[in-house]
Amino acid sequence: MALIVQKYGGSSLESAERIRRVAQRIVETKKQGHDVVVVCSAMGDTTDELLDLANQVNPVPPGREMDMLLTAGERISNSLVAMAIDSFGAEAQSFTGSQAGVITTERHGNARIVDVTPGRVREALDAGKICLVAGFQGVNRETRDITTLGRGGSDTTAVALAAALHADVCEIYSDVDGVYTADPRIVPNAKRLDNISFEEMLEMAAVGAKILMLRCVEYARAFNVPIRVRSSFSNETGTLVSGSLEDIPVEEAVLTGVAHDRSEAKVTVLGIPDKPGEAARVFRTLADAEINIDMVLQNVSSLADNLTDITFTCPREDAPRAVELLKGLQGTEDHQKFGQLLFDDQVGKVSLVGAGMKSHPGVTADFCEALRDAGINIELISTSEIRISVLIRDTDLDAAVAALHERFQLGGEETATVYAGTGR
Amino acid sequence: MALIVQKYGGSSLESAERIRRVAQRIVETKKQGHDVVVVCSAMGDTTDELLDLANQVNPVPPGREMDMLLTAGERISNSLVAMAIDSFGAEAQSFTGSQAGVITTERHGNARIVDVTPGRVREALDAGKICLVAGFQGVNRETRDITTLGRGGSDTTAVALAAALHADVCEIYSDVDGVYTADPRIVPNAKRLDNISFEEMLEMAAVGAKILMLRCVEYARAFNVPIRVRSSFSNETGTLVSGSLEDIPVEEAVLTGVAHDRSEAKVTVLGIPDKPGEAARVFRTLADAEINIDMVLQNVSSLADNLTDITFTCPREDAPRAVELLKGLQGTEDHQKFGQLLFDDQVGKVSLVGAGMKSHPGVTADFCEALRDAGINIELISTSEIRISVLIRDTDLDAAVAALHERFQLGGEETATVYAGTGR
Repeated sequence: MALIVQKYGGSSLESAERIRRVAQRIVETKKQGHDVVVVCSAMGDTTDELLDLANQVNPVPPGREMDMLLTAGERISNSLVAMAIDSFGAEAQSFTGSQAGVITTERHGNARIVDVTPGRVREALDAGKICLVAGFQGVNRETRDITTLGRGGSDTTAVALAAALHADVCEIYSDVDGVYTADPRIVPNAKRLDNISFEEMLEMAAVGAKILMLRCVEYARAFNVPIRVRSSFSNETGTLVSGSLEDIPVEEAVLTGVAHDRSEAKVTVLGIPDKPGEAARVFRTLADAEINIDMVLQNVSSLADNLTDITFTCPREDAPRAVELLKGLQGTEDHQKFGQLLFDDQVGKVSLVGAGMKSHPGVTADFCEALRDAGINIELISTSEIRISVLIRDTDLDAAVAALHERFQLGGEETATVYAGTGR
Repeated sequence: MALIVQKYGGSSLESAERIRRVAQRIVETKKQGHDVVVVCSAMGDTTDELLDLANQVNPVPPGREMDMLLTAGERISNSLVAMAIDSFGAEAQSFTGSQAGVITTERHGNARIVDVTPGRVREALDAGKICLVAGFQGVNRETRDITTLGRGGSDTTAVALAAALHADVCEIYSDVDGVYTADPRIVPNAKRLDNISFEEMLEMAAVGAKILMLRCVEYARAFNVPIRVRSSFSNETGTLVSGSLEDIPVEEAVLTGVAHDRSEAKVTVLGIPDKPGEAARVFRTLADAEINIDMVLQNVSSLADNLTDITFTCPREDAPRAVELLKGLQGTEDHQKFGQLLFDDQVGKVSLVGAGMKSHPGVTADFCEALRDAGINIELISTSEIRISVLIRDTDLDAAVAALHERFQLGGEETATVYAGTGR
């Protein structure tokens, strides 16, 4: 008998009929003799509808009230699933994040979990009940106010509960039935992975794979909670995210998959004096504005004027702000004003991830040749121990994903199934 | 400077635009220098929509989960009003029933308030904030589960908070701008009362006046909390419910108004042995089934067979059950089986309420003559110290209300305004 935490996304709960289907799956798991804790996102578009209402009454709503409002969504789906479970003859009890002991930081809208004390959940489990916990929410210790965890919050709630309850596995159900070697919408023969290490999943998530949010994988890795990515619309076993790179025998080490990302923009600062402290000045400015930098490239300076250029990528929505901030930097006695600033949001990033890179030389060469053969120009390159990422025209993105997937023979025989909708 | 508790019904909050209007009113009250605590019902039809969803996933949903579900409605309206207030430049903080210290009994769906410990609300008030408290909900002390207060719950929450905070007045806002001498929809020149005592309001509520729920008036009377009934769609001062009968000088004692009720059915038990214990047997049966009896009439028995009849009224939805139960009563050695049972749900009740009755003889005579002159037949009469109620054909109800209102000259000069919609 195992303790299983299951998390269901909004698309799996968007109607009474889907809620009943999810409840059936939960009851089946319980009947197999397992203890079950379920974390639910808000139904379908509930969150967007609440956001819209909030925007109508106040374009800049206070964070505390916004959290009070949004958390209602998970309470609704949560209690409805509990009712559905009851109708299938099993005992269920729902808990708010606060009742389940999800303690967070004070920061409304994007709080971090600092502790999970699921005493009441444990009691209910011991009483043979199926426990439902509202995802995406917690309560902050200082003011006992309700907080929300921001994007991917429900996944994080599930993993955090699994860690606190020492669950055997955390199953994340959405409309995607696992982690694929590439987006099946772009590469029809993309193959679902049976297993993937935390590190590889982290790299995949970091470079744009939408299946799991980075923070949730980081949490799972930190507490060594195995995650199984499954679809609530099929009975596939999905993909198991667990173990570290070290567990993968070098001989077996392979390439994991191709990920892509359309969410970034490229900014180039021209005419930077090629001397110590100038780059630091650029990035300190951005850091102070809480703008996350992804790829960075500095060209060698031309001997003529001893000036250099720095190019970096950041989230598209932050790019205009970044440009303004850097333009605004006045010259000082140690620093002269920067030259021209270039801004480009027509870019896309394609990445190849895999533990195999460490042991198989020539991957980078193959990577670049594959893009060359597809007539795609590389604008920026950045690599990690187990990842290669390049920046290209966003119009070339799909072709690049397909070309790399093909070149590294990541595909399978049959065509991958794609489900509609997306979970939160 | 006073401490004012304001309660807004669902119809006052059914859209973003109405929520902003309510927020404006709240901020105005605050600007007048008062401390303000606001209790909100769920927006418009939210509760019905949630009930419908629940019914779809489980026709007989467990009470605990139902309460978890329904309380989301008040959280939503509550936080939205807080956001709207913020947009008008005032500071607001919303609280769930549990955060506001509304402690209730365990009974889900129809819990009673046992204690209110509004420590956090008081703190926020002292910090100059406008406090919003989700109505209709509380938390039970034993299991710390969320409970709901049943019909009229939000009004009761408001009065209970007003009592606990020693508020100067509890303003109940709905789509009706006060307590009228009769339903303005039936009697166009019905007059709005400026004042009414708790006892008179209790009688009015008990006999069908929809403005305030009985339990809320009982609570207000017990803790002597003045209630002002007002409309959120006008600036009328409404009706003040306060003081006791004793405060009304006999000379001034007058008749309050005419109330009517279509929600009851009449049940007649024929052929009951005219001896001690038989009536008790009837009403014990109904009491055990938690069926509330309203009017009761026992005819004198005919000497011939020494059998009598008992007629009573009860809520229409309970009447069929009552009939079945009484039919099911088998004869015992002390009790023979009852005779025939008659059931009639085409009845209506019209009542005249007023402290004046005590000091003005002949009111009952005038009452009956008024109905006679309108050609309306009386089927049942029941009276209290300050009330006369009669049961008639429901088709005669409107005419009866008009006739009595006219006969006792309760009307005013101008025509009363009627607003659309109804609050919870």
